[in-house]
Amino acid sequence: MSNSFSRRNFLQTSALAGTGTLLTSTLQANNLDMILDKDSIGKSKWDLDTPALVVDLDKMDRNIKAVHTRLQGSGVGVRPHVKTHKSPFIAKMQIAAGAVGVCAAKLGEAEVMLENGIKNVLMTTVNVTAPKIIKAIALRKKHKGFIQAVDNPQNIQDLQDAAKAAGIKAEVVLDIDVIRRSGVPPGEPAMLLAQMIDKMPNLRFCGILAYDGGVQHVVGFKKRQAQALKAYEPVIKTYEMMKAAGMNMEIFSGAGTGTYDIMSVVPGFTDVQVGSYVFMDRQYIEIGGARNEKVFDDFETSLTVMSTIVNNYHAGRLTTDSGSKAFTLNKPNPLVLGEPDFNYNAGSDEYGVITFEKSNKTYKVGDKLELVAPHCDPIVNLYDVIYGTRNDKVVQVIPVLARGKSQ
Amino acid sequence: MSNSFSRRNFLQTSALAGTGTLLTSTLQANNLDMILDKDSIGKSKWDLDTPALVVDLDKMDRNIKAVHTRLQGSGVGVRPHVKTHKSPFIAKMQIAAGAVGVCAAKLGEAEVMLENGIKNVLMTTVNVTAPKIIKAIALRKKHKGFIQAVDNPQNIQDLQDAAKAAGIKAEVVLDIDVIRRSGVPPGEPAMLLAQMIDKMPNLRFCGILAYDGGVQHVVGFKKRQAQALKAYEPVIKTYEMMKAAGMNMEIFSGAGTGTYDIMSVVPGFTDVQVGSYVFMDRQYIEIGGARNEKVFDDFETSLTVMSTIVNNYHAGRLTTDSGSKAFTLNKPNPLVLGEPDFNYNAGSDEYGVITFEKSNKTYKVGDKLELVAPHCDPIVNLYDVIYGTRNDKVVQVIPVLARGKSQ
Repeated sequence: MSNSFSRRNFLQTSALAGTGTLLTSTLQANNLDMILDKDSIGKSKWDLDTPALVVDLDKMDRNIKAVHTRLQGSGVGVRPHVKTHKSPFIAKMQIAAGAVGVCAAKLGEAEVMLENGIKNVLMTTVNVTAPKIIKAIALRKKHKGFIQAVDNPQNIQDLQDAAKAAGIKAEVVLDIDVIRRSGVPPGEPAMLLAQMIDKMPNLRFCGILAYDGGVQHVVGFKKRQAQALKAYEPVIKTYEMMKAAGMNMEIFSGAGTGTYDIMSVVPGFTDVQVGSYVFMDRQYIEIGGARNEKVFDDFETSLTVMSTIVNNYHAGRLTTDSGSKAFTLNKPNPLVLGEPDFNYNAGSDEYGVITFEKSNKTYKVGDKLELVAPHCDPIVNLYDVIYGTRNDKVVQVIPVLARGKSQ
Repeated sequence: MSNSFSRRNFLQTSALAGTGTLLTSTLQANNLDMILDKDSIGKSKWDLDTPALVVDLDKMDRNIKAVHTRLQGSGVGVRPHVKTHKSPFIAKMQIAAGAVGVCAAKLGEAEVMLENGIKNVLMTTVNVTAPKIIKAIALRKKHKGFIQAVDNPQNIQDLQDAAKAAGIKAEVVLDIDVIRRSGVPPGEPAMLLAQMIDKMPNLRFCGILAYDGGVQHVVGFKKRQAQALKAYEPVIKTYEMMKAAGMNMEIFSGAGTGTYDIMSVVPGFTDVQVGSYVFMDRQYIEIGGARNEKVFDDFETSLTVMSTIVNNYHAGRLTTDSGSKAFTLNKPNPLVLGEPDFNYNAGSDEYGVITFEKSNKTYKVGDKLELVAPHCDPIVNLYDVIYGTRNDKVVQVIPVLARGKSQ
């Protein structure tokens, strides 16, 4: 059993905890106006200063509703992952549509959600350092709906100690390893940890989560379905062992946008941790879906980036103001709407470079382009706000309050 | 001659300009405490919540001085590019060390610098839309040391109109195309634009800039030197044409960290736009320098990322809390200090995955790692603050005030 901080240090730090840690997001909420570009309300998306991140609210509304409609009768609930949008505004829309709560990847994200009106947050990664554990327990003390993932014995003991010191009983779920990245290996190792948690007086075991990250982008629905269920076999066995042992299995959470409609056959499975479905991106569009093998059109592409052409001196070549600081380096390349022949290279930090053989119009310097992002999660993490539009006009400036909260 | 906004619209927008645009960064300066994690002062960098971006201030101090020492007697000045650090705090250190001013890539960056105590800012990209031109002229009206790049006739006319409306004479430099990304092609096209600017009553022509972005990372000093000077030949001819025509050539700016010590042979060249030299990164370390062909050690690696191990269940494999939202997807992979055999994959959004055959110690969950970034500019753009350390203790929390200012 390993530990990078001594018990003594842990308790010393505990004594100082709680005050400073919860302050940041409250201040942030008070300073919302600072990052909100209110003057943009009523503008056409084509008149926004660029690069600008834009979401079509009508399409996003439909996506947020569609996941529930599609899962109706399957017995599978929805617990959307906020790592995608990092915005309490969008999380509230998801809750209003029937989500059982949200997931958060990082403690900083969970804090922003809980401190801004989201009551039920499941944190899907483990908190392994003393400051994070102390902050997590302080959050749980304040917000009853905060549930944390655990995956190793030391971590369970530390959470127990911190919960005891805070005088609370904290809810935990066990993260089960699917892709050798996070979680405890399934089967016996997982069972031992579940039993360990069950014996802790200040922890409450609430079930398991298991994320099949390796299959989300497998192209072709049937292939993806087969691989997802195969990868999940050890998880299902682990669930059944725990169920048979009489453990509390109220949560069995997992999957993503690529596998949300595959999990209803998994015994005991409770909810899908879909993230990208609100926005969609090139990576997901191209995997194909259950009803359309070529294009994954279960959800609409609501998120785009507006860019401006800054140079057109060379034939078959255009430079824009949107490089890797606007798009990330994720592949495939950003897609220019209306110009299927354009190859957009966002490899420069400050500039995008388009090469093409044919175009549907002649582009001038100052002309705007609208592009689909390669991968929605990290691109949102570059922007302070998302401009929410209806009929191409800005009606809402959405603060990305948990932007940069990678801690 | 093309234009995406009509003259009438341009003037209408002009009438509304000036107030809202300059407000943001003033508010930002007032709210600095919000993003500053003051509790971290005095902490060891090994105790920071992770992922954390850290700069060794002693090393950065030496880098900031070294570029001047190395260029002493060459007749070449230093105009550091703030796109790298996006921080007025570091820009002030650069000015104090003898920089003639700073460069900014985007108008938002220029604004943050000018509104936070940096007097001389050269913006190296063109402002091509009405709102940007209006904002740029408002900035120039307030701050005499703001110089802008131009590269096309419409843009020159628009700047002239806006400067006239504002009742000022605005300084401009002409961006000369080297890598077919920005700027006007060298030779006659550039000469025509220079003459056009010279005739504008409200613009003042101050010279040229030309960035040889394509050669900065050529491996091997002599090869890089030869390619840089070859690529610069048309720019030098353009300079000589303008000089012979009696134009004001007080600025002839260009180059970067990879070519800063190559430019003294270029006639009339005034200053290098070095950025990465303050921090260094894997991309630059590996190009080799004039005194060390293998390692580019003219500057020290001052910037690192602190990460925490969150999973160690599998032999030869460790998971950390720092993925692409902490490192970007730039190549080569982040380098784990002290573990040359570690291969660090930051391809997941939230997790880093290390694979290795041998390690110098056994790593526990909760252990910290220190890593060198692949590419410093876009990684800084992910973080709200950089922790400044001396002897590994935090002595300064540096706000990345222009983070996300890609507009």
